[in-house]
Amino acid sequence: MFSQRIRNEELRNRLVTAEEAATWIQNGMTLGLSGFTRAGDVKQVPRALVDRANKSGQPFKVNVYTGASMGSEIDAIMAEAGIVNIRLPFQADGQMRAKINGGEINYIDQHLSHTSEAIRSGSIPPIDVAIVEAVAVTEDGGIIPSTSVGNSAIFAEYAKEIIIELNLRQSPALEGIHDIYTPGKQGERGPIPLTQVDQRIGTTAIHVDPSKIKGIVVTDEADSPSTIVPPDEETAQIAAHLLELLRAEVAAGRLSNTLAPMQSGIGSVANAVFHGFLDSEFTDLEVYSEVLQDAVFDLLDAGKIRFASGCSITLSPEKSDQVMRDLEKYKDRLLLRPQEISNHPEIVRRLGLIAINTALEFDIYGNVNSTHVMGTNMMNGIGGSGDFARNSRLGIFVTKSTAKGGAISSVVPFVSHVDHTEHDVDIVVTEQGIADLRGLAPRQRAQSIIDNCAHPMYRPQLQAYFDEACQRGGQTPHVLEKAFSFHDRFRETRSMLEQVEEKQLVTK
Amino acid sequence: MFSQRIRNEELRNRLVTAEEAATWIQNGMTLGLSGFTRAGDVKQVPRALVDRANKSGQPFKVNVYTGASMGSEIDAIMAEAGIVNIRLPFQADGQMRAKINGGEINYIDQHLSHTSEAIRSGSIPPIDVAIVEAVAVTEDGGIIPSTSVGNSAIFAEYAKEIIIELNLRQSPALEGIHDIYTPGKQGERGPIPLTQVDQRIGTTAIHVDPSKIKGIVVTDEADSPSTIVPPDEETAQIAAHLLELLRAEVAAGRLSNTLAPMQSGIGSVANAVFHGFLDSEFTDLEVYSEVLQDAVFDLLDAGKIRFASGCSITLSPEKSDQVMRDLEKYKDRLLLRPQEISNHPEIVRRLGLIAINTALEFDIYGNVNSTHVMGTNMMNGIGGSGDFARNSRLGIFVTKSTAKGGAISSVVPFVSHVDHTEHDVDIVVTEQGIADLRGLAPRQRAQSIIDNCAHPMYRPQLQAYFDEACQRGGQTPHVLEKAFSFHDRFRETRSMLEQVEEKQLVTK
Repeated sequence: MFSQRIRNEELRNRLVTAEEAATWIQNGMTLGLSGFTRAGDVKQVPRALVDRANKSGQPFKVNVYTGASMGSEIDAIMAEAGIVNIRLPFQADGQMRAKINGGEINYIDQHLSHTSEAIRSGSIPPIDVAIVEAVAVTEDGGIIPSTSVGNSAIFAEYAKEIIIELNLRQSPALEGIHDIYTPGKQGERGPIPLTQVDQRIGTTAIHVDPSKIKGIVVTDEADSPSTIVPPDEETAQIAAHLLELLRAEVAAGRLSNTLAPMQSGIGSVANAVFHGFLDSEFTDLEVYSEVLQDAVFDLLDAGKIRFASGCSITLSPEKSDQVMRDLEKYKDRLLLRPQEISNHPEIVRRLGLIAINTALEFDIYGNVNSTHVMGTNMMNGIGGSGDFARNSRLGIFVTKSTAKGGAISSVVPFVSHVDHTEHDVDIVVTEQGIADLRGLAPRQRAQSIIDNCAHPMYRPQLQAYFDEACQRGGQTPHVLEKAFSFHDRFRETRSMLEQVEEKQLVTK
Repeated sequence: MFSQRIRNEELRNRLVTAEEAATWIQNGMTLGLSGFTRAGDVKQVPRALVDRANKSGQPFKVNVYTGASMGSEIDAIMAEAGIVNIRLPFQADGQMRAKINGGEINYIDQHLSHTSEAIRSGSIPPIDVAIVEAVAVTEDGGIIPSTSVGNSAIFAEYAKEIIIELNLRQSPALEGIHDIYTPGKQGERGPIPLTQVDQRIGTTAIHVDPSKIKGIVVTDEADSPSTIVPPDEETAQIAAHLLELLRAEVAAGRLSNTLAPMQSGIGSVANAVFHGFLDSEFTDLEVYSEVLQDAVFDLLDAGKIRFASGCSITLSPEKSDQVMRDLEKYKDRLLLRPQEISNHPEIVRRLGLIAINTALEFDIYGNVNSTHVMGTNMMNGIGGSGDFARNSRLGIFVTKSTAKGGAISSVVPFVSHVDHTEHDVDIVVTEQGIADLRGLAPRQRAQSIIDNCAHPMYRPQLQAYFDEACQRGGQTPHVLEKAFSFHDRFRETRSMLEQVEEKQLVTK
């Protein structure tokens, strides 16, 4: 049984049920779960664990590390059952979000390339059990991941024990698309040899001591589909502005016709931006990114992208069916790497990526908030945006200029939480236009952002703030007691927009 | 004449006066000047240029790029003469600071490893003239820098013309301590081969097309001395806390007895922290840093440091005399590299540095302000602190818990400017104690910082803020309308400290 999927005979004797595997996990343990942007996450053992905890009536908490967000409601049911102590480095589930913001879960929001170093250096609790989804186990016990690599390699390396979820629903043709490479410890490692997007530097399997593999649970369940929505008028405008910028870069001789390897964050806006390349003149593009969404495969299909390197594949149900059916045709144009490598500062800077990430809000000086709604409540997490923005050739942040039907301006005097500082933000884009901040001092940045990116209905009050701030002076002028006036107004009136009466009062 | 100092015969024919060289610089040009932390800066040509501009009566502005801060009053006289348009990536002069904060100079505060990439990518105005201090010019026209490398190599590579200030006062024995390596363009370069602090990867000279060397000005003038002050009781306490932390890391098996290569920022606090190692049990230490200050040489003398790699040497007058006299004895334990290499994310992360930098203020969640006084006025610049903190093994920020005789708390509810986000700050230290933020969620970070780092007189009002914020909830609880209350109070009363009456009102 499973002789193709489990090619090591001894390991075929370690088949267990999810329920039995769950009994190996004790209160207080730290778990490393596979899963990145809903792809390749483990499904049945976490569910069995939640069942067990719910039924036991005993206090039960574990620390849960993943690659990034889980699908399959795993974060939701773990949060609901109250079994999570520390959660890191990223999540995107509503129920878990509520518990995080309620202070019930200790959520550590990390740069996605940093978790592996924290594990190696021992600065976070060590991993007891790694639970990793696989499409196959090789003759020598190597683990072939499924639709994501994420942190699975480092989890497996450092875990005391490993449980494999062998998912029969995932295509066995995924074997061969992974490139597993892990640097050694800091101070003992050499350079990461990757210099080309399509370069293999590692192995197709995660190699571990097979004696650490305690059990294999056979599952048969699809990944949760992507939740992205199709491009709308505003995201199409953002994409158009971005193409215009890239054309200008080519015209100025700063980029060639094939641009530079591109990274794009997770989500609908980022996906829409990539879709914009479909009708563009650009071709032979390269992608060096985290998650590969629908748009990447549409661009591969259209011959626009010559190669895509990522660390997970997260697709809509329709696209997923097609891609998994035709996997062989993509295999020589696709690699999935550990998130440490897909996001590594060393590689991002060496390749000189064009990095496109989504902002929740940015301020007039170009500081970006990617994570905290109104400065306090965690949305998802910083993800890889910092890994990419800081080290890229072009650090670009995109967002619609308003949210909640205009009640929120995405451009504010002072961001209510800073994830990316002015030093790391080259260009900001909204449907209104582009502010190219390169080579500009803060006051110049402010005027460009107000003029080009803010929604027209918010420009007067942003300009008024900036003008008043400039009268006080400084490299980065502010009126600190009014810095959060937009957010304060929203809390009081449910809109950041100044009422006309107030405005008249101010301009008198 | 100068046959030892200028070993290329043809170049010996290009001796010019500073005044003549200055006439080559036209209004609107962009200059790349050597100089990093007052070391190895060019002196006479900038002075002649200011003289010329002052006398001409014509509008005259240039863009001025450097390694980091200049000595010899160069920034002061350029600012006073009003000849600077863009200034980057760092400065530390009072007169220039005033013009920057007045909005008269477009100051672009950059990560010190980023300037070279901005030059390569053409995202800032290209360099017309590089003016570089040297101790010698080799047979093939190679430029031997003096007490700093900074950005001199990239300036020389990209400049249309080069002017050399050959400084006879600088020891010719400096030849051989430089290791010049420049990566190629992004997307075309390979890995930087450096894997050991003491490893040579480049050449001892900056190699350029000799035809670009338009003139050589002979000078004879010492670097401006370091402005650091001796350790005081509080900086000694900070150093003691830090040693305690490092001992605990060794005890926990996270560091060996020789620790890991260390970086320390510029200034008195950082110097005092390094001095703390003199009386410690640690030995065979390695330094991989930017500026090498007095303490590094004291530790080399004491046999505590086995090797120090930096990008400049900035010393007190006494120490400078001794070091330059005994240079031969340090030469096999010392390398100066371009700041792009000393600060490169690729190397900082590979080596796993212990990075110690100075904060102006930090907030209860561990966000750090390194640059802006009260959020608006530029002090110096971010320097290399971001290059190091983000990519280090241990990102440590130090500061005294109060300033201005207690009127300012260095620990605030919300920093008035963010240079380093919570994601990049592992440990904060004041004379009060250490907050080890690794593995802590924001609410845990806040309590640790308030309890361990804040000055006792500010703890009650920080705790009151945090408690009120927690009642509102969130991953990172804040009371946004009071987030800058400390800064607002200082502006109104010249002290951040709450008056007792107010406090009673609050606690009722």
